Amino acid sequence: MNRKLRMGMVGGGKDAFIGAVHRIAANMDGLIELSCGALSVNPDVAIASGKMLFLPEDRIYTNYEDMIRAESKLPADKRMDFVTIVTPNFAHFAPAMMALDHGFHVVIEKPMTFTLDEAKQLSKKVEETGLQLCLTHTYSGYPMVKQARAMVQGGALGKVRKVIVEYPQGWLSRLSEREGNAQAAWRTDPKKSGKSGCMGDIGTHAAHLTEYITGLKITHLCADLNTMVEGRHLDDDGNVLLKFDNGAAGVLVASQIAAGEENALKIRIYGELGGVEWAQHEPNTLIAKWLDQPTQILRAGANYTGVLSSFATHNCRTPGGHPEGYLEAFGNIYRNFALTLSAHIDGGQPTKEMLDFPRVEEGVRGMAFIDNVVKSSASKEKWTLFEV
Amino acid sequence: MNRKLRMGMVGGGKDAFIGAVHRIAANMDGLIELSCGALSVNPDVAIASGKMLFLPEDRIYTNYEDMIRAESKLPADKRMDFVTIVTPNFAHFAPAMMALDHGFHVVIEKPMTFTLDEAKQLSKKVEETGLQLCLTHTYSGYPMVKQARAMVQGGALGKVRKVIVEYPQGWLSRLSEREGNAQAAWRTDPKKSGKSGCMGDIGTHAAHLTEYITGLKITHLCADLNTMVEGRHLDDDGNVLLKFDNGAAGVLVASQIAAGEENALKIRIYGELGGVEWAQHEPNTLIAKWLDQPTQILRAGANYTGVLSSFATHNCRTPGGHPEGYLEAFGNIYRNFALTLSAHIDGGQPTKEMLDFPRVEEGVRGMAFIDNVVKSSASKEKWTLFEV
Amino acid sequence: MNRKLRMGMVGGGKDAFIGAVHRIAANMDGLIELSCGALSVNPDVAIASGKMLFLPEDRIYTNYEDMIRAESKLPADKRMDFVTIVTPNFAHFAPAMMALDHGFHVVIEKPMTFTLDEAKQLSKKVEETGLQLCLTHTYSGYPMVKQARAMVQGGALGKVRKVIVEYPQGWLSRLSEREGNAQAAWRTDPKKSGKSGCMGDIGTHAAHLTEYITGLKITHLCADLNTMVEGRHLDDDGNVLLKFDNGAAGVLVASQIAAGEENALKIRIYGELGGVEWAQHEPNTLIAKWLDQPTQILRAGANYTGVLSSFATHNCRTPGGHPEGYLEAFGNIYRNFALTLSAHIDGGQPTKEMLDFPRVEEGVRGMAFIDNVVKSSASKEKWTLFEV
Amino acid sequence: MNRKLRMGMVGGGKDAFIGAVHRIAANMDGLIELSCGALSVNPDVAIASGKMLFLPEDRIYTNYEDMIRAESKLPADKRMDFVTIVTPNFAHFAPAMMALDHGFHVVIEKPMTFTLDEAKQLSKKVEETGLQLCLTHTYSGYPMVKQARAMVQGGALGKVRKVIVEYPQGWLSRLSEREGNAQAAWRTDPKKSGKSGCMGDIGTHAAHLTEYITGLKITHLCADLNTMVEGRHLDDDGNVLLKFDNGAAGVLVASQIAAGEENALKIRIYGELGGVEWAQHEPNTLIAKWLDQPTQILRAGANYTGVLSSFATHNCRTPGGHPEGYLEAFGNIYRNFALTLSAHIDGGQPTKEMLDFPRVEEGVRGMAFIDNVVKSSASKEKWTLFEV
Repeated sequence: MNRKLRMGMVGGGKDAFIGAVHRIAANMDGLIELSCGALSVNPDVAIASGKMLFLPEDRIYTNYEDMIRAESKLPADKRMDFVTIVTPNFAHFAPAMMALDHGFHVVIEKPMTFTLDEAKQLSKKVEETGLQLCLTHTYSGYPMVKQARAMVQGGALGKVRKVIVEYPQGWLSRLSEREGNAQAAWRTDPKKSGKSGCMGDIGTHAAHLTEYITGLKITHLCADLNTMVEGRHLDDDGNVLLKFDNGAAGVLVASQIAAGEENALKIRIYGELGGVEWAQHEPNTLIAKWLDQPTQILRAGANYTGVLSSFATHNCRTPGGHPEGYLEAFGNIYRNFALTLSAHIDGGQPTKEMLDFPRVEEGVRGMAFIDNVVKSSASKEKWTLFEV
Repeated sequence: MNRKLRMGMVGGGKDAFIGAVHRIAANMDGLIELSCGALSVNPDVAIASGKMLFLPEDRIYTNYEDMIRAESKLPADKRMDFVTIVTPNFAHFAPAMMALDHGFHVVIEKPMTFTLDEAKQLSKKVEETGLQLCLTHTYSGYPMVKQARAMVQGGALGKVRKVIVEYPQGWLSRLSEREGNAQAAWRTDPKKSGKSGCMGDIGTHAAHLTEYITGLKITHLCADLNTMVEGRHLDDDGNVLLKFDNGAAGVLVASQIAAGEENALKIRIYGELGGVEWAQHEPNTLIAKWLDQPTQILRAGANYTGVLSSFATHNCRTPGGHPEGYLEAFGNIYRNFALTLSAHIDGGQPTKEMLDFPRVEEGVRGMAFIDNVVKSSASKEKWTLFEV
Repeated sequence: MNRKLRMGMVGGGKDAFIGAVHRIAANMDGLIELSCGALSVNPDVAIASGKMLFLPEDRIYTNYEDMIRAESKLPADKRMDFVTIVTPNFAHFAPAMMALDHGFHVVIEKPMTFTLDEAKQLSKKVEETGLQLCLTHTYSGYPMVKQARAMVQGGALGKVRKVIVEYPQGWLSRLSEREGNAQAAWRTDPKKSGKSGCMGDIGTHAAHLTEYITGLKITHLCADLNTMVEGRHLDDDGNVLLKFDNGAAGVLVASQIAAGEENALKIRIYGELGGVEWAQHEPNTLIAKWLDQPTQILRAGANYTGVLSSFATHNCRTPGGHPEGYLEAFGNIYRNFALTLSAHIDGGQPTKEMLDFPRVEEGVRGMAFIDNVVKSSASKEKWTLFEV
Repeated sequence: MNRKLRMGMVGGGKDAFIGAVHRIAANMDGLIELSCGALSVNPDVAIASGKMLFLPEDRIYTNYEDMIRAESKLPADKRMDFVTIVTPNFAHFAPAMMALDHGFHVVIEKPMTFTLDEAKQLSKKVEETGLQLCLTHTYSGYPMVKQARAMVQGGALGKVRKVIVEYPQGWLSRLSEREGNAQAAWRTDPKKSGKSGCMGDIGTHAAHLTEYITGLKITHLCADLNTMVEGRHLDDDGNVLLKFDNGAAGVLVASQIAAGEENALKIRIYGELGGVEWAQHEPNTLIAKWLDQPTQILRAGANYTGVLSSFATHNCRTPGGHPEGYLEAFGNIYRNFALTLSAHIDGGQPTKEMLDFPRVEEGVRGMAFIDNVVKSSASKEKWTLFEV
């Protein structure tokens, strides 16, 4: 590859949170440049945002339809290579379908769509077009999450028996959606967020992380979703019992009313021989526990002999002791997506490490997770079959 | 009080684990002396154990019936004041009833009895006799658990919304009961342990801690108990959804197959205004989290102005930075029990801090917890009413 | 500003460590683009590296003299705005002087020069030209370091009494310079690194951090430098007693033979009323300790009321709980440098937060620190005056 | 042994801190009983304290001379076996000498005496009498300190190169000696404490711990002692450079004005192959770091295969995960002293684990440490030879 990949962005205008994160992640490694954008549904904001980001005026669009159409007519050495969609959940599907239909690869925020049905249509479209769809389940971009996956799926723990995954946040402890918090407003609005609030926003991350690391599939669940803040229209808290396809059991806790918590995603997985523990607050560390040997602290970027998987080392930019964080994890997803695209463009073959980014299948399971927890929470039956 | 209280011990002979712990706890503060014992059902062990503990020969008994009868005939200035029962679960009830019938106060290991029905009988007997029964739910003896209780029940967090309580251990990851581990053997034997293994042994601690700190009662639960090690006869793992009488929700996780975990009891409680977190591995610390102020690290014995409750400071022996541990927590239960007894003997009134030790009511709820989780786990219904 | 700033890089070709870090830091926020480079003294490497970084062929140079001369002749809307120098220590001075002489701003790795004398010449040149020189003392880019500085210099701790600063690494525990480790080779070579190894490489970071946070100046020191690995030509370990201009005392520990340590920079500062503690391994946390109130955990990006300084919040990209790391700290230095330059270019005034990046004065003190510790270590006198 | 050992206590009356700690430590394991005491120089306090501790009236003494004389005349099956001296530093020597002269073993608080000369006399007396003298350097009683010692002296780290030992406290940040704090008053009074404050009180602990774990001897030091609180008469802070007899270097930091610190004793030792780290705030953990393998967390009482030394396991009362603390560490010193005495009384041979408690030689080195740091701090020479 002798050039950067060109990215077009849908959503992510001034003051949006996740759009800025996507841009940093895409910028970081010098493999991608922001080439155009339809950065807001508000044309003034779209234009001002494009200028702020130094986009050329003719590539600042005021809606995604225009962008996709116009870019598809540009010469190959100028037009964008892929579209990144960072709008609220309800506005993922249409631009994603249109981008694919016009031959553009897609990066998309999670949850992938508004409904499970949309997710399935998108999956079909990806299959038909043969294009890449990358789903930004950020936490799977951390090197020590990949190390955990390599260890668990490589058999270091023996058969997995138990999973404890939790994602407590406290930022919705008040009715912030009525206090001018834009992030809170759309996330708690069923018309924009979907049929679940907390579980759709962060429960899906926890579920994805679990299946990503263990390689197991959730087969049954028993959910208790709660709306703890009066006046709110979606769940802001939930506890879910899990069963896995190998016989393991688990529990998934997600909450946005865990007052005083930041973003405390944590997963513990126990097998016959030991356990692993990873927490997002200290993401460069993986704790490995053993039945009859001392607990080990594995560190990203460390210079061990024969310990770290190539999936971990491929996703580190610095030696051990130079903490990498959330933005680098996000950057790893973009980097692997970009390396995969570049390899294809160059007619080469991406390595298995490059191919390691979340895809449309995981987006479908994420939407199914939302459907199933909502269904289970409303049910008097203990166990709900995890249906896709 | 011008003398030490005299303790008679049932069970706890050589090589028993918890009996030795009780003796250290009772010795520690110089308020109690071991005066007699029926330390084993095996007469040889009973005698050897008594000698090892420097008991006078005439007060080494070979069964509890003899001990209670003989001691009750001794003059008041010589006979034991109370009986401590540290036998396996199935052998708690009979000596406790007999001790109470003979006018002796009782200290008893948890779970209090073998069945809920026994627990209720014991409760009735305590009420009838007016004697003290102290249940050694160790973890409630920690000063920072008491601080958490004072803060939560004092309203510092506002209304409680969510509880996450967990007690993972790894020591039963193998079929140790067949490998000569005596502790494992009786705890996994339904005839000695009762109808639940893991939930009876440690789930009860987690449930007690939750109700102790929050002052709330569990009203409904949804349990998934598992036997993960093939060949085992009782549950060795479980996850339980909880509902509380104020509308709060929670989850309780207990496991003895969480390979590599020691004794990782931890509780997190979230209210409208903040949260508290306490973990047994670092018991001198209570973490207090707030919606819009930095998290605080409260430390046992610290010299703060106006922060620590009298319930916390009363239960510290040393200034902050001199870590107290499990044995001191256990010692606090004995110390408060002894101070209460001494106050009564002296015709005085124990303070509220002295009266703060677990009692028969908590033992009844603990047995009900076991009954209810076992019932729920076998049920297809999601929610089981917590019945006592 | 309606465009990105253009950066030319000296050094940092393929396989160099710190050059890649500089590029990520510069890329991250979309304010800077790499426009040209003289990336290696080896022309083949220089060219290959430029291509790898997608530089246009006519702006890939094979030595810095050519680059500076050629760029200075380009039209203003094309030529680079500043030069980043990421060569080994001995090769900082010449390109920096030449860049300034040709009107280019400079970013430069620490230690700033090879000798104190060069540092003073460079300082004079910066003063004469009125150009910006930014010294990448990375650790001062962390938001919670800036929070510590705001608290300490704002008087929250009262008068500072004691500083403990330490920077243990273990990576030079073996004679790695003879085992093909390129990083080790130049850093332990007096001809490339200067008169000190460990103290020049990381002791300077510790000294800078101390003066940056406290606002105090070291006035006297007593150093014990050691070469613990046989065959090495420079110090690989050292302990230094410190005296400060307000009467405070301290100790600085730096080591590259602290086997098993990664990059464990940590600073503790104690005043009359409390203390602060910051460690690079968990950089988003600042611990604040108080005489009679609980210790507080301050977190970068947190949504507190009235706690975080504008210097901290200005340097966060994400809300609390999304860990930012070493690359973001590095990025903050570039970002503030870029914002300052942009403000000047636009004819505006940078804010005080933008102006907060290390400068030539700090580079001079860093070189003086090296001179003084080496002098002290060789002296039989206890105290050596810190002379600049 | 068919009885408890009998202890007589000098000092430690009501409201004294360390006397109560000694009693808990002695009580804990049921091997020792408090038989008599001269608990205060104030006769009323002495008597009231004796009653509070349930001593028989005829064995409550009002001065140590009476106690030692009277007890020495009691029949062998009644008189005390040893004397514990818990008075302020200036009042250690006389009762210790008298006790030894009357044939009683001695337990004594550190620093052992008021002057180095006294320490040497005491050492000679111990040698002459052949009696046991136990010095309560508490921190060496922790099992994981013993594990560190076994690992370091067993060669797990290779040759030791560097030691960082620190003991920051904050409790003397104010002029508490003038605010009615009795502990502060005598500790900062040169007539009661000796020629050093902070270094005598806690620096000696740090120095002892260092030599205890490493088996090395300090040969040279360079001390900077400070009195940071105006009006105080002894040092309240200090930093010391160290040289060891094997060529290793180190630094010792002690402070009582590290505002907000509790009792944060911590030691790190680095050798050619790895390092160990132990901190008193989390005493059940020993961190072992390795050049090319992950850091390990070794835990007291853990059920590892072939990891823990017999010196560690002998000093644990409970399985891993039941935190033992300061009182148990103290208890270990008493327990080993008692087991050694009992073995001698029974005509047997104590094991090497029993013999592992601090002795008079360590007391002499502690007093020499105080002399040498005070001398060094007053000197203009960098290095002061460690003379005994």
